[in-house]
Amino acid sequence: MTLRYTPYTLEFKYPFRIAINTRIETPIVITEIECDGLIGYGEASMPPYLGEDQQTASDFLEQASKIIGEYKTPLDIEIIMARIDAVRIKNTAAKASIDIALHDLKGKLENKPCYSYWNLQKENTPFTSVTIAIDKPEIIIKKIEEVVAFPILKIKLGSEDDKKIIRTIRSCTDKPLSVDVNQGWKTKEQALEMIYWLRDNNILFVEQPLLKNDFSGSAWLAERSPLPIIADESMQRLHDLETVKNCFHGINIKLMKCTGLTEAYKIIIAARKNKLKVLLGCMSETSCAISAAAQLSPLADWADLDGPLLIKNDLFEGVKFVNGKITLNDLPGIGVKKLREEKK
Amino acid sequence: MTLRYTPYTLEFKYPFRIAINTRIETPIVITEIECDGLIGYGEASMPPYLGEDQQTASDFLEQASKIIGEYKTPLDIEIIMARIDAVRIKNTAAKASIDIALHDLKGKLENKPCYSYWNLQKENTPFTSVTIAIDKPEIIIKKIEEVVAFPILKIKLGSEDDKKIIRTIRSCTDKPLSVDVNQGWKTKEQALEMIYWLRDNNILFVEQPLLKNDFSGSAWLAERSPLPIIADESMQRLHDLETVKNCFHGINIKLMKCTGLTEAYKIIIAARKNKLKVLLGCMSETSCAISAAAQLSPLADWADLDGPLLIKNDLFEGVKFVNGKITLNDLPGIGVKKLREEKK
Repeated sequence: MTLRYTPYTLEFKYPFRIAINTRIETPIVITEIECDGLIGYGEASMPPYLGEDQQTASDFLEQASKIIGEYKTPLDIEIIMARIDAVRIKNTAAKASIDIALHDLKGKLENKPCYSYWNLQKENTPFTSVTIAIDKPEIIIKKIEEVVAFPILKIKLGSEDDKKIIRTIRSCTDKPLSVDVNQGWKTKEQALEMIYWLRDNNILFVEQPLLKNDFSGSAWLAERSPLPIIADESMQRLHDLETVKNCFHGINIKLMKCTGLTEAYKIIIAARKNKLKVLLGCMSETSCAISAAAQLSPLADWADLDGPLLIKNDLFEGVKFVNGKITLNDLPGIGVKKLREEKK
Repeated sequence: MTLRYTPYTLEFKYPFRIAINTRIETPIVITEIECDGLIGYGEASMPPYLGEDQQTASDFLEQASKIIGEYKTPLDIEIIMARIDAVRIKNTAAKASIDIALHDLKGKLENKPCYSYWNLQKENTPFTSVTIAIDKPEIIIKKIEEVVAFPILKIKLGSEDDKKIIRTIRSCTDKPLSVDVNQGWKTKEQALEMIYWLRDNNILFVEQPLLKNDFSGSAWLAERSPLPIIADESMQRLHDLETVKNCFHGINIKLMKCTGLTEAYKIIIAARKNKLKVLLGCMSETSCAISAAAQLSPLADWADLDGPLLIKNDLFEGVKFVNGKITLNDLPGIGVKKLREEKK
């Protein structure tokens, strides 16, 4: 097999403000693995806080391409990914791009959609939430109008204006909301007080209220919170579950954090055994990585796979959202078609 | 102290159909404990499936009155309740009536609302759901119109018409629903299939989908279900938690099952430590037992305290539901006033 990769920059429709910063674009890399004339597509999305960029990803993919070159087929994904993972500790997004491309290629070679490998029913997908980033009230109201078909909104909190933002949203919709604090609340007591205030506002769960290493604060909060507390930044890979399971009610699994579908599936199974809720999330990603994640979505309690909705320049066509419901197609692999080539 | 009790019959506004039967009334007993001219009120509600009736409750209260007579004050509720509990294994509702009356009396003697004993904030109460029992579509639609102010509806399922009922409800409201199956689904596979169907319908959780002793089926289901599975009939008292915690995502705590506020508080704390969701529920009860349960409600994730809304002949005035939010008053004890005497 041969591996190629191309850097690309995703542009947001709106400047994307969360608790810690505001961004207008996200660097990604598109990875292609070819075998017998078929191409499997993968993607690495690299928001700055992951500590990975196009240069480090390219360096990693250069090394990984030698390993991929040793294999004739993508069929033993577990074995290949174990070797890829061992190259370096980090580069989880670059690793995910390889894992996704291998899954896509395997599905194309065997003419099967990926969800069928885990015996999932495509009807059992959840709805996706759609993210409303922090913004001025008039912009928030405009954004909500744009996503009127989606039944669940995800709200970014963690600024001084949290209550004002929720009141603004509640002035125009009663839809259930999920709340993502991105480590933005200062103390566990402030967090608990805010959560009690939020509970009257039809909130599904609260993501990452406290700093990612504040496990004792999170455990204190999880024991008291009347809303489920979900780990995002605190939960990267499978081995984190041992700690996180005692401090949260659930976890946000993202392919870019956990090196792809192979490990994401293992995390979901382990989370279920520990009675943790499973949110399947994403970074800003094209329909490539999102369609890959969507293959696992029948196993998730909630999904937040709105990446393609937030960007202007998607490169792929794949999973659809029909009135918000994740809708898989019958195409093999991760179910995507490339719309156009990346401009370099 | 002296203990008195009076049997009474609660009449439903509508015949109340659930998976196993239809009822038009519920036998209760009102318990009063007097001390220094103050009266604490308590209540035992006895739906037939609890295995308790007015005769067995009266016999129990007759025995218990001797123990109550030995004490000058209700201040050591834990000690008194330990003795009451030891009289017989069963009679949990009669025991709850004593526990509630002791709490009410203690609060009146010390001029404190009960919630203050657990350091709870009265603002932190949840909303209550309101139950829509199984009925013909036109009656279901009429009932939904009657409870337009309540933001969460509880739907009784477990009949052949489950999907039809949900479709009927969804034809007139998008409100979040909780679902109570009352052991009505036949197999774990049928349950999982129904839950996947339900997940697209804005459902908060599913109560008691399988037979109360089917712990292996419930564990299988809890590991796979994309909606939280809550134990009701499977969970009676504190000692049940050891088993139930491995088979469900949460528990429905009812004073009538667990002998009152003393044990209910212990169950909530234990549930939180085990990351179980807490639903605070009720039988058909007057505002007496409901106002008692409401004192604990700031600790619950969800509440289903709609007893007084379903009956025609309440005897008390107490907790209010303001647009569905449980609203505690500042009266001492459980916060009730008796409206009129029971007709015997």
